[in-house]
Amino acid sequence: MKVLICGADGYIGAEFIEQTKLDCVILDNYYKRGLLDFHHITPLYPVPYLQERKLNFFHYPRDMGNYQALSKLLKKEQPDAIIHLAEQPSAPFSMRGRAEATETIQNNLMGTLNLIYAVRDFCPKAHIIKLGTMGEYGCPNVPIPEGWFDCEYRGRKDRLLFPKTPHSMYHLSKVFDSDALAFACRMWGLRVTDLNQGFVYGLNTENRSRFCYDAEFGTVLNRFVVQAVKGLPLTVYGEGGQTRGFIHVDDSIQCLHLAIENPPDKGEFRVINQLTEWASINYLAELVQMATDCQIEHIENPRIEKEEHFYEVEHKTMLDYGFRPKYLHQNVVEEMVDIVKHYEDNININLVYPTVRWAC
Amino acid sequence: MKVLICGADGYIGAEFIEQTKLDCVILDNYYKRGLLDFHHITPLYPVPYLQERKLNFFHYPRDMGNYQALSKLLKKEQPDAIIHLAEQPSAPFSMRGRAEATETIQNNLMGTLNLIYAVRDFCPKAHIIKLGTMGEYGCPNVPIPEGWFDCEYRGRKDRLLFPKTPHSMYHLSKVFDSDALAFACRMWGLRVTDLNQGFVYGLNTENRSRFCYDAEFGTVLNRFVVQAVKGLPLTVYGEGGQTRGFIHVDDSIQCLHLAIENPPDKGEFRVINQLTEWASINYLAELVQMATDCQIEHIENPRIEKEEHFYEVEHKTMLDYGFRPKYLHQNVVEEMVDIVKHYEDNININLVYPTVRWAC
Repeated sequence: MKVLICGADGYIGAEFIEQTKLDCVILDNYYKRGLLDFHHITPLYPVPYLQERKLNFFHYPRDMGNYQALSKLLKKEQPDAIIHLAEQPSAPFSMRGRAEATETIQNNLMGTLNLIYAVRDFCPKAHIIKLGTMGEYGCPNVPIPEGWFDCEYRGRKDRLLFPKTPHSMYHLSKVFDSDALAFACRMWGLRVTDLNQGFVYGLNTENRSRFCYDAEFGTVLNRFVVQAVKGLPLTVYGEGGQTRGFIHVDDSIQCLHLAIENPPDKGEFRVINQLTEWASINYLAELVQMATDCQIEHIENPRIEKEEHFYEVEHKTMLDYGFRPKYLHQNVVEEMVDIVKHYEDNININLVYPTVRWAC
Repeated sequence: MKVLICGADGYIGAEFIEQTKLDCVILDNYYKRGLLDFHHITPLYPVPYLQERKLNFFHYPRDMGNYQALSKLLKKEQPDAIIHLAEQPSAPFSMRGRAEATETIQNNLMGTLNLIYAVRDFCPKAHIIKLGTMGEYGCPNVPIPEGWFDCEYRGRKDRLLFPKTPHSMYHLSKVFDSDALAFACRMWGLRVTDLNQGFVYGLNTENRSRFCYDAEFGTVLNRFVVQAVKGLPLTVYGEGGQTRGFIHVDDSIQCLHLAIENPPDKGEFRVINQLTEWASINYLAELVQMATDCQIEHIENPRIEKEEHFYEVEHKTMLDYGFRPKYLHQNVVEEMVDIVKHYEDNININLVYPTVRWAC
């Protein structure tokens, strides 16, 4: 079993290649490092480059936008599974303006298209595992199925992919990815697992995975913990009734392994909702408050989104695979607080406040 | 009322600017002429360049991929409505390989994204009318609604966009366009009419609109008529039970005018199924056979598609607007045959047979 990790230098990728016992080759062009540097965004602690880490894995410093390089790599390595994490991952970044929206869609969609054609032509049996997000679905007023749903309309029935309602250009780019991959399964018999992941939180003591806490690349719980450590009020966007699914970074790694162990059939586009639980932003803020005794502040919401809505997610597949989740309790927050405190001097608190507005 | 026609040199665009009495400015970069020339595809008769035609309209020879030019144009002209026809329109072309798939998605999606941002920032009240296709939906086992449908799932309800199942990279690119436009309505209050059009057929005596009959850019009825005129058997792909919606080119122009007269509200993404009727490919072949006494042959289907399926389309909106359709009867086919006969010597019959296979 050989696994190719595309985007091995990211938050999830870097953690995966530390934890996994699988035979891997890795690909990363350091695009995200460049993006962070260019925008003067520093993670909580510096993360070693792939070549500085003690890894047994061969690193291809390749851009997925380079089809020739990607196809050569696949032809040579013949991976059994490919984890595709190589994407511009920030919703606020994608909403800065036209240039960033275009960059996000170009980078994400063109990388995915290149992967589809390279797999089709050079390793058609490989199992593509694509990281998507729960944010692709938006907040429909019905429970969110795992991709496919039994559609009833005008007295007739079909099994179709559930419609998505993304709320940022980043999320839109991920919808495009999913649609392109579903198409490749239908047309050419590729096998794809599409993971709609909740937002990822958490870090561990070995500081090997990039922990961002800024308003663009950091996720909400990470930002709250950093604010609490600095003794500042947590800034909740708007009413805070926004409800989101989430998952600890270690659980994300566990799920990726479970996905690898359970390949879909030829031509199957399998969709899995990858999260442990969901809660409102207010609930998350209160959890951090209980652990740290911090204040909570509501600020103007920079995003365009519902602040009070129904939310329910089906997420049976990973549990069926044997997923043993780590739920978000107060002690998990306390663990995070302890690690972040260790790096307190590195925090540039200005990064935590939103600068990008969704409205034009 | 000022209208901008993007893609004014195409099959529909060229006919629109001849028939309309509205005040127009037009945009076309002659991309499709280049594509046809490059692949040695000749239409039934040469069509004059826009500058050779007696038009009162100012022609911007612009590429929608050039954001600076497009935004400058919108800022200056301040159109009330924008008809967006400026797309790579061929499904088989998009299925030639990776390069053509990428070209199709780049051209279509990036043009649409540029239009979205330029309208948002320079003429936010303009009504965008986007030509999409019925092929975006695929062939679901339920009636196809006009975009929005009442979704019932697990005892709860929501009004969502109906899921699409495209069967070529071209159709996938159109799904992306629609998703991007729906997003722009949700986020920034743009007003969009998304027209899911059946395949277009027909021509008129004034030879002003490009009539393609080749396997890549010509639609099925046009191809059948050309084969019949040459005394050759009509080549039906596979079983011929594939059912499709269609519309005469004159009716397409009529519908575009009706769309212009009925702008959606701010923030509304209105979806209309634009077709007069639907039938199986076998039925269309038999109709041409009745008019011309030709033979019918079934050849191996180059596409990957269902050859027998349920098909029903809701298409009430245009009729509510006052649309008076021209239905496809034998006499309409006879009219087409007469005009095509006039150009019989121009026909290169080799172009009619498929060269692109969907399977890899």
